[in-house]
Formats: sequence, C-alpha cells, structure tokens
Amino acid sequence: MTKIAVILSGCGVSDGSEIHEATLTLLAIRKVGCDYSIFAPDREQADTVNHYTGAIMQEKRNVLAESARIARGKVLPLSELDPEKFIAIVFPGGFGVAKNLSDFAYRGENYSVIPEIETILLRAYKLKKPVGVMCISPILPAKVFRGCKITLGAVCDASKAVEKNGATHVVASHGETVVDEKYKIVSTPAYMLDASIEQIAESADNLVKELLKLV
Amino acid sequence: MTKIAVILSGCGVSDGSEIHEATLTLLAIRKVGCDYSIFAPDREQADTVNHYTGAIMQEKRNVLAESARIARGKVLPLSELDPEKFIAIVFPGGFGVAKNLSDFAYRGENYSVIPEIETILLRAYKLKKPVGVMCISPILPAKVFRGCKITLGAVCDASKAVEKNGATHVVASHGETVVDEKYKIVSTPAYMLDASIEQIAESADNLVKELLKLV
Repeated sequence: MTKIAVILSGCGVSDGSEIHEATLTLLAIRKVGCDYSIFAPDREQADTVNHYTGAIMQEKRNVLAESARIARGKVLPLSELDPEKFIAIVFPGGFGVAKNLSDFAYRGENYSVIPEIETILLRAYKLKKPVGVMCISPILPAKVFRGCKITLGAVCDASKAVEKNGATHVVASHGETVVDEKYKIVSTPAYMLDASIEQIAESADNLVKELLKLV
Repeated sequence: MTKIAVILSGCGVSDGSEIHEATLTLLAIRKVGCDYSIFAPDREQADTVNHYTGAIMQEKRNVLAESARIARGKVLPLSELDPEKFIAIVFPGGFGVAKNLSDFAYRGENYSVIPEIETILLRAYKLKKPVGVMCISPILPAKVFRGCKITLGAVCDASKAVEKNGATHVVASHGETVVDEKYKIVSTPAYMLDASIEQIAESADNLVKELLKLV
C-alpha cells in the first residue's frame, strides 16, 4: 500500500503534537486508501506542560516515547525515515513543533529547525515529494526554504516571524489549504484558528487530498 | 447545544485513554450536532508505561492532567460531573479503564470499579441516561449492573471475566454495536479487535448514533 510518513513531536498540544490533528491526519490518510508510518525524534522534550493547569512541570519526557502514545507503539526514530520510501510527508501541529522540532517557541523569528528535520525537508524537495504542514508546522519549511508560500491562518506573530525569514504568508480560513507548487508544500491552519474538532477533520482531509495531487 | 459527557482515564492506550478512540468519539459527537464536556478522575495513574518500549516507568502521572492532553486543557474533575446535565455519557477505551477507573488489569474477574464511576453509572441508570462504552470500557457497567449485555469483540479473557460477573457477552465485529435496552448501554469493540483507525471512526460514529436512539 502507498505510504505517507507522519512526523510527530510528542503527545499533547502544549509540549508535543496536537492530538486531534495527529489522529485526524492518520484517519485522513487511511480514508484516501493510503497507509502511514509514524516517526519522531529520539530526544528529550524541551519542556513538559501540565495540560490541566498550564504549568511547566519538573519532569523530563522523551519525544519518541510520548509520540508512541499517539502511534499506539508503532513509531520509529526519525533517523530511520527515508523519504524515498514514501509518497509524501505530513507534520501535524502542536507546540512540540515549535519546541522539539525547532526552537521557535523560545527564539521567535531568530529560530532554527533541528538538523534532522532540515535534512528531511531538503531531501524531500530534491526527491519532489510533497510535504503537508498543519497548524504551526509551516514554520519548518518557511525557515528551510525561505522563499516558500504557506498559511498560518490569520495574520499573527508567527506569520510575521516567517515573513521576516522570507516566506510569503497567505491568510486562510477553517479547512482551507495553501499550496506552494514550487516547493510542493501544502499548509492548512487547523488549530492556529479557534477551531472545533470537525473543522480539524476537514483540514486534515483537505491537506491529504491536496498532497496527493502533488505526487 | 445538547451535550454528551466523555470520561477519560489518562492519555495513551497502555496506561490511559486510547487516543484514537477518544478523539474519534469527540468527532462523532460533533458530527451528529451535539457538543461534549470531558471529565477525568483527579487521581494518580496506577502506572506509567513507556509506549515505545512497553516498559513500566518510575514516574507518577495524574489522570486528570494527562487526560487534559486529549481535551486540549478543557477537562473537568470527575467529581464535577452531574449526569442530569447531559443526554448521554461515553467512555472511550484504553488500559486506563482497567487501571485507573477500575483494577481489572490487576485483579481480573475479581475486579472492582472505582466508587466515583460506580456512582455515576448508577445515577445515569436512575435518570435513564444512555451510556456508551468502547473497547475495554464495557467492564465498567458489566460489574456495576451485573446482568447487562455488552460486547468486548471476540471471546477473550475479558469477556469470560465479565460473564463470571453475571454479564452477557455478545460477539461483535468492527464497527458493530451491541445495545442493552434495559440498562441503556451501547458497546462497540473498537481496538479490542485488531482494527485500523478508520474502523475506530466507524465504531465511534455507530456508538454515538445508537446512543441518540436511546435518549
């Protein structure tokens, strides 16, 4: 079965992958008749947030082990991801993207993307593999490719930061996608907007459909 | 908007709520035009499992704080759940049901359900509020009501254990539901069977539709 790689950054909106976005991306992939493999970096999370109180916790968690919660154990270290084996790659959102896959949460416009992710994005581009980015994830290709076109929903601090890095930000609403044909990047706002879960399902479905058009 | 209460038991199949089942239950509720409130007991998890390695970890986590990951922070302590305010109650599955809402994972057929859950189930019955139970969750009403009819998918150790407690177990396949009209219990196997995520979506959709028929 044709496979799409999904890259997670933990488990939970405030310090990892946003759970609804991740789950509904997996569902969207299956609904179009493809299958998925899930990957995550084997590294310590930047921080751990108590999602009930919002407080930073003392404990240290591992991105791969926490991502495995969403993956039901079936997750591989990001170092084992070979873009050649997949027709596309998708990044669900969540603060994990800004904390564990980059340092955007801490450095704003002066952020950097972790080397493993940069390597994968450059390799995907070389192989002409489309990449889907939900929610805050467009910050990743925005930094690596500089000139690419993406959406982060409405104009916001994040959209201004990526524009300072050379990206073109396009305003988009619930469920809408923005397609960069040159870099083969499909983005959708998802929970960058104040959305309900069925709007996230629509975002994920549309993202995957647009990705398939670029394959 | 008409509301359904969803009760979680943590975040992750091996020590909490199964994430796909929980997420797709929330989506199913919104798809039928209802809204949801999410509840979880404010208590320490029975254990914490590294979902990548399967090993038990030393750290202690709180059921309410971990459930908040699935709820995106919008979760209330179970003590604040008043069944009268909801048209129905749903329990997604995951080992958290057998570890944090009961001690089934440790005591098998001699298990007990935590008092807070027992009180809610008895009150829901008295108020004629239907209760939906996915995956392993049918063990909860099976113990509290003894004579009720539920499914845990195929015949298995869990189905034998609930039958020893007076329940009637009905074999069911992917996406199917079993309805107990007397106790207003709707059950569906979900990940009790070796299922794919789109089969879980079907299970959740059918569970919610059958629940609405009993309202």
